[in-house]
Amino acid sequence: MRIHTPLKNLWPSSPFVIKSDSKLTMQVVRYFDTILASGQISPGFRLPSERSIAATLKVSRNTVTAAYNELEQRGLIRRIRGTGSFRCHPQGAGDSFSWSGKVSSKAHLMDEPILELLARNSCSKVSYPLLGGTPSLDCFPTEAYQETVNRVIREDFPSALAVAPTEGQSRLRRAIGKWINVEPSRVMVTSGAQEAIDLVARCLIEPGDYAIVECPTYPGAIQCLRAAGAQLAGWETHWNLGELEKLILRYHPKLLFTTPSFQNPTGRVMSLATRKGLLDLASRYHLPIIEDDVYSKTYVNGRVPPQSLQHLDTCSQVISISTFSKMLAPGLRVGWIVAPLYMVKQLSLIKMRANLFTGGLNQLVLSTMLDEGSFDHHLDNLRFRHGVLRNAAIAAMEAAVGSQRLSFTSPNGGLYLWCKLPPGTDLDLFLETAEARGVCLAPGHAFFAEQPSHSFFRLCFTATTESQLVEGIAILTNTLNGIGAQAPN
Amino acid sequence: MRIHTPLKNLWPSSPFVIKSDSKLTMQVVRYFDTILASGQISPGFRLPSERSIAATLKVSRNTVTAAYNELEQRGLIRRIRGTGSFRCHPQGAGDSFSWSGKVSSKAHLMDEPILELLARNSCSKVSYPLLGGTPSLDCFPTEAYQETVNRVIREDFPSALAVAPTEGQSRLRRAIGKWINVEPSRVMVTSGAQEAIDLVARCLIEPGDYAIVECPTYPGAIQCLRAAGAQLAGWETHWNLGELEKLILRYHPKLLFTTPSFQNPTGRVMSLATRKGLLDLASRYHLPIIEDDVYSKTYVNGRVPPQSLQHLDTCSQVISISTFSKMLAPGLRVGWIVAPLYMVKQLSLIKMRANLFTGGLNQLVLSTMLDEGSFDHHLDNLRFRHGVLRNAAIAAMEAAVGSQRLSFTSPNGGLYLWCKLPPGTDLDLFLETAEARGVCLAPGHAFFAEQPSHSFFRLCFTATTESQLVEGIAILTNTLNGIGAQAPN
Repeated sequence: MRIHTPLKNLWPSSPFVIKSDSKLTMQVVRYFDTILASGQISPGFRLPSERSIAATLKVSRNTVTAAYNELEQRGLIRRIRGTGSFRCHPQGAGDSFSWSGKVSSKAHLMDEPILELLARNSCSKVSYPLLGGTPSLDCFPTEAYQETVNRVIREDFPSALAVAPTEGQSRLRRAIGKWINVEPSRVMVTSGAQEAIDLVARCLIEPGDYAIVECPTYPGAIQCLRAAGAQLAGWETHWNLGELEKLILRYHPKLLFTTPSFQNPTGRVMSLATRKGLLDLASRYHLPIIEDDVYSKTYVNGRVPPQSLQHLDTCSQVISISTFSKMLAPGLRVGWIVAPLYMVKQLSLIKMRANLFTGGLNQLVLSTMLDEGSFDHHLDNLRFRHGVLRNAAIAAMEAAVGSQRLSFTSPNGGLYLWCKLPPGTDLDLFLETAEARGVCLAPGHAFFAEQPSHSFFRLCFTATTESQLVEGIAILTNTLNGIGAQAPN
Repeated sequence: MRIHTPLKNLWPSSPFVIKSDSKLTMQVVRYFDTILASGQISPGFRLPSERSIAATLKVSRNTVTAAYNELEQRGLIRRIRGTGSFRCHPQGAGDSFSWSGKVSSKAHLMDEPILELLARNSCSKVSYPLLGGTPSLDCFPTEAYQETVNRVIREDFPSALAVAPTEGQSRLRRAIGKWINVEPSRVMVTSGAQEAIDLVARCLIEPGDYAIVECPTYPGAIQCLRAAGAQLAGWETHWNLGELEKLILRYHPKLLFTTPSFQNPTGRVMSLATRKGLLDLASRYHLPIIEDDVYSKTYVNGRVPPQSLQHLDTCSQVISISTFSKMLAPGLRVGWIVAPLYMVKQLSLIKMRANLFTGGLNQLVLSTMLDEGSFDHHLDNLRFRHGVLRNAAIAAMEAAVGSQRLSFTSPNGGLYLWCKLPPGTDLDLFLETAEARGVCLAPGHAFFAEQPSHSFFRLCFTATTESQLVEGIAILTNTLNGIGAQAPN
């Protein structure tokens, strides 16, 4: 077997002057000690031959051989007959082993606190959890769920726990297909919408590709596309098609990621005309659209959004993503993708490598709940409850707004208010103070792929009780008063 | 906004000779038609200015303007005031949209049939499923599972379905930590062992890095490491440390992926001395070890394997992977990683982007089953059952071997026999014939990262009843007879 010396390691120069007061072999050993201790020679690096070291140091080859023997005994080098001598670490010295030096450059880029903050705070125990993106769990149909779980265990176990198709259990694909009126073969089950975004990013993005995202947008999409190597360009959520066309012409993007229904975080809904115009533009420039459709069924006050891009699409250019996380509970980890058959195949090849397939129990439970109507019944309850919470949040915010110059959205669906602080307010100070008082909010800058604005925050109005929500908002506005009062000092 | 012309598109040359028999504007339009129809100009490409086209074609600028107007009306170009004219597709022509042109080069490489075959066949209905890697589901403790599920729903719902920590539910991390005797903070929950391998590969592998895998090894690891951009070097499963050292010196690998206990597919167990020698070698060369420890608890006949590398490791150089898939059921999708704290953090950052967190219900159910001992009770049953199946498989194989020159392993754990066909047998013909008779086997070449051998197959002895297993093996040996008999013709 031929063994190559890595190019990155060159033998460093180090002074060597023969002194008469010590044994020559030990002088050569010390010469090596100095070089090896300098850290310039990685483990596995091939040392120069004894002959060449002897010539460099102007000593006999026997002296070098003796020095190499000594170094080997100390565990600093390995001599392999017929191959050479190699740098290694002494036995047991591996406790200096550093994983950070092994982590890939892409993974190092992920050391970013924003997603971590969103993930951590949304699951830690806080008094007023207004940060995360959880629908009202008070509406969770525990009884129907439990009844269905027991039925699935009775009827489908243990076969439901065997290895299952990567694209999802056929029962769930059929049930979703029927529910949203698409061909089941175009439905692929995922472990939540985040996995769907990750699969799409891994499938389409070549490092260096541009992707267009809305500005602001879901931080999980920003982070996921970046992790796949994408550069991001932001499209303002006024959804101006002329602006989009300029972005397309400028960046030649690989995809557009858009949330046309109850956009996260702004809660805005793209008009039917803009949806059609967007599809037209995408078809003219062969631009794939990734539609984040996770909120479209969470409308309140009967304000149903226009048809999804995926339904309006006549050119098979849209991949649509949805999830039970925003309609039932995030801990189920069941979402889905609607895509052209070719892409279902490609995305499955990636999912096979990522986690083989999504868990069986919840897939069968959800397909039964969809088929039997208990899921629709739940959705009606959820919409009513979200409507109550949304109205309470807006009333509480309005009561405070007059004096505060705090502006905020009044969405007809989704889970969030998107709020803008009065000019000059210190967002970080505001968020920290609020958190110290038990109110957790999502910092607005996490939602911007470029030019993060430091005057926004997102408030989730669905993850608490109504009284918690109103109290939390009161604490917020007090906090804002306190900070505002401090400002002139 | 400045818009750049992509470098890859250069304006192609096309002959243009003015003819007197038709309107000049239409001649210019036809000139463009020819170029645009050639497919050399992508959507979004900027066309030359009217002035430069006029000069090239030696016509007036007004003529070019009229031609551009005509092209725009036909939907073939877009003119944006102050910016330029751009190639686009006519409205509604997007049905020619091709996703395959959008898929990244890495994803294109995944179009490989082996994992697909393993995934598909292992979940399709076949009479004798000897292909997949499922433990005996006949032993699944449905009653204990169901009882625990109902308790979790009663006591922990719906909060158990909220957003949860990426590293896993703390109850399960504690239960696993206690069960395998490691610090809970070093345990990270994953959606099965495949996700664990994917996270590690995404975290450590830089495209072009070498990784050492055993030869043969688990195909899911081969595919996953390759998808992350790794080049693979194979280490023979005789586990010769001298060979490994040469591989380390030759390839400077980023990691070693090894399955020391009941290796997949060979069923071999690495001796304690080799384990210690391996750790020593890894520490000398700062080589991260990824230990696939998914089979160590599935021993039969009381033949417990030596301690895991992770337990023997004193230098924090080992990341160990395990899963409930091989001990309970793959459809649970719960596995885990034991890693140094720094790596738990890094791997969590990737998992956040991949799927946020693993589902809540099964995590709580499994932590309860571990804590209360019903899981250990199940494992005892499973080992007994696997022992019976293993002995039946070996007896059936031995009965057939004399005449067949079929050789196979007799492992004391894991789920597989690794079998070698008599010299000269056509593996593909053998597998196809067996499959036509209802017996599905894993083709051996899927397990080799380099120099795939076409004389092996893997037989899973745990996914069937004993009688199915014996019948299946009888069909196999008949098939082999049939093929052998055909050979001389």
